[in-house]
Amino acid sequence: MSDSLGTLPLAVSLAVSLGDPAGVGPELIVEAWAQRASQVPFFVTGGAGVLAAAAARRGVTLDIIPIADPAEAPGVFVRGLPVLAGEDGDYRPGEPDRAGAALALASLTAAVALAVDGRAAGVVTGPVAKSAIAAVDPGFIGQTEFCADACGNARADAVMLLAGPQLRTVPLTVHCALADVPRLLTRALIEHRCRIVARALRADFGIAAPRLALTGLNPHAGEAGRMGREEIEVIAPAIAALRAEGIDATGPHPADTLFAAHLRPTYDVAIAMYHDQALVPLKALDFDEGVNITLGLRIVRASPDHGTAFGIAGQGSARANAMIAAIRLAGEVAARRALING
Amino acid sequence: MSDSLGTLPLAVSLAVSLGDPAGVGPELIVEAWAQRASQVPFFVTGGAGVLAAAAARRGVTLDIIPIADPAEAPGVFVRGLPVLAGEDGDYRPGEPDRAGAALALASLTAAVALAVDGRAAGVVTGPVAKSAIAAVDPGFIGQTEFCADACGNARADAVMLLAGPQLRTVPLTVHCALADVPRLLTRALIEHRCRIVARALRADFGIAAPRLALTGLNPHAGEAGRMGREEIEVIAPAIAALRAEGIDATGPHPADTLFAAHLRPTYDVAIAMYHDQALVPLKALDFDEGVNITLGLRIVRASPDHGTAFGIAGQGSARANAMIAAIRLAGEVAARRALING
Repeated sequence: MSDSLGTLPLAVSLAVSLGDPAGVGPELIVEAWAQRASQVPFFVTGGAGVLAAAAARRGVTLDIIPIADPAEAPGVFVRGLPVLAGEDGDYRPGEPDRAGAALALASLTAAVALAVDGRAAGVVTGPVAKSAIAAVDPGFIGQTEFCADACGNARADAVMLLAGPQLRTVPLTVHCALADVPRLLTRALIEHRCRIVARALRADFGIAAPRLALTGLNPHAGEAGRMGREEIEVIAPAIAALRAEGIDATGPHPADTLFAAHLRPTYDVAIAMYHDQALVPLKALDFDEGVNITLGLRIVRASPDHGTAFGIAGQGSARANAMIAAIRLAGEVAARRALING
Repeated sequence: MSDSLGTLPLAVSLAVSLGDPAGVGPELIVEAWAQRASQVPFFVTGGAGVLAAAAARRGVTLDIIPIADPAEAPGVFVRGLPVLAGEDGDYRPGEPDRAGAALALASLTAAVALAVDGRAAGVVTGPVAKSAIAAVDPGFIGQTEFCADACGNARADAVMLLAGPQLRTVPLTVHCALADVPRLLTRALIEHRCRIVARALRADFGIAAPRLALTGLNPHAGEAGRMGREEIEVIAPAIAALRAEGIDATGPHPADTLFAAHLRPTYDVAIAMYHDQALVPLKALDFDEGVNITLGLRIVRASPDHGTAFGIAGQGSARANAMIAAIRLAGEVAARRALING
């Protein structure tokens, strides 16, 4: 859905973190490399042994090329998968353990640090099990929050956009109980996150005048207050404020129709009020190709919008479409930023 | 998605109510009749003048055949659209008024009464504007509740199932504020409605051992209580009780993945906890062909799963797929009941 654009500067590449070594991350990275003809160059932070084992198990012929500096990656990428020196571990697909979670965290930490330093053009994060990493690092909530912290941003500045071939959507509230959504959904939250989205669609996606379509919280957007008053008291005033700033925000639209095929072309992003309102249509339409990209940070960060899938790891059946799409989208956004910044 | 089966007994047909005459109902009925070769016979309760005008406006060549008794409908259906003597009005598409709402209510009342009496095989209801009818009849909440009352059922017995080519889904709570959902979602409600669904899928849809997949209420079905406890305290116990009765109920499943293409074949119906959780994926996937069928009543009742669409009424652009699908599904269910009962 994004406009096409140039490529990355020659000496820059994306850092890809391994994800949980017991999940599908390693095999999807290997598969993405196998389809490198249409990819921007990337390297993996650590996990050389895991990746070699995942390639062998999946039947992908691949040379691991150890590198000591990210700058080496673009030059060798066509010949093999560049892996930056770093921690490594055993490949035991489907058998997550503490050592694997520690490895995933080390790989993530290294990849994000390189992006923050400007030595990587951006980060693509492999899937991790949050609770497993939290057992290693109790402060860990999720990769998005981790990236915000590393960038020195408030966590509220990190906005999750889900992008698939048929839909871009942002959930304004994310990992909270549904019962907490009405309380968390404030005018300030809606306005703050929509401003970040509008700015990112302009700067990172090259959409000159992005159209934001906001859903209602309640069925049929509340039907003029008959089923909930959040539309009247919170969402509509936020939309009015955004419009007064020149942002093309519309709604609140009834959520059930907003994601229908004939309405999807009428906006550039659907702004949903909570997790499932955004994720249900995205995965119903584009399960295998959904990308999660974090807006509002100074680094570019994307990931495939699926989990570790421990249940099918190592069986060769996991599809790499979302990983490949995440790398492609991160590359496009990074190239656009490089173009803008110099 | 339903199995094919026989046809209606020769002398029986479906009653179709007009819907709001200012909406798309009349033109869709006319269009459904024009494609009658693949339809079960139906007649409309009243509104002959409205239907003739809608046909003329849409460019459908059609004879209105006035009938005095539903039993006449099957014999004349091939030649023209049978319309039972009843109230009529003006055709002013896009201009809803009180007289139109009164006509819609009269047509609905007549159609439902004939189904309750067994003189119609079932009812297909045209779209109405609830608030407009409530202005005429303050007790009116919706057509589903109207049908439950006419059947002498408790309203809690009338369960809305949405059926499209790719998905069957039931929202356990429907037209209420999202903030009220956690309170309304009780074990008793879940069990009662799931029993009705299981029974109806067997009796009305001919599915011998229906598979019910229940969603969670919270993101990722709560992640073991980390984001809400309704899965643990309410939904899982209800599922256990249903399973103990021999109903193939599973879950709670994370809602965001349950509607994905690779999981849809694993169940016969997705049981969602609230309106948008069911309606968003249905309309994202099958906007033009969604049918709303009411389970748990002694009459067969279906309707197209869209509204009056006042904004496009009379312009010839409204698609009749959902109306046609509603008539077909109502005919199939009625035929199956006729087969079972006699």
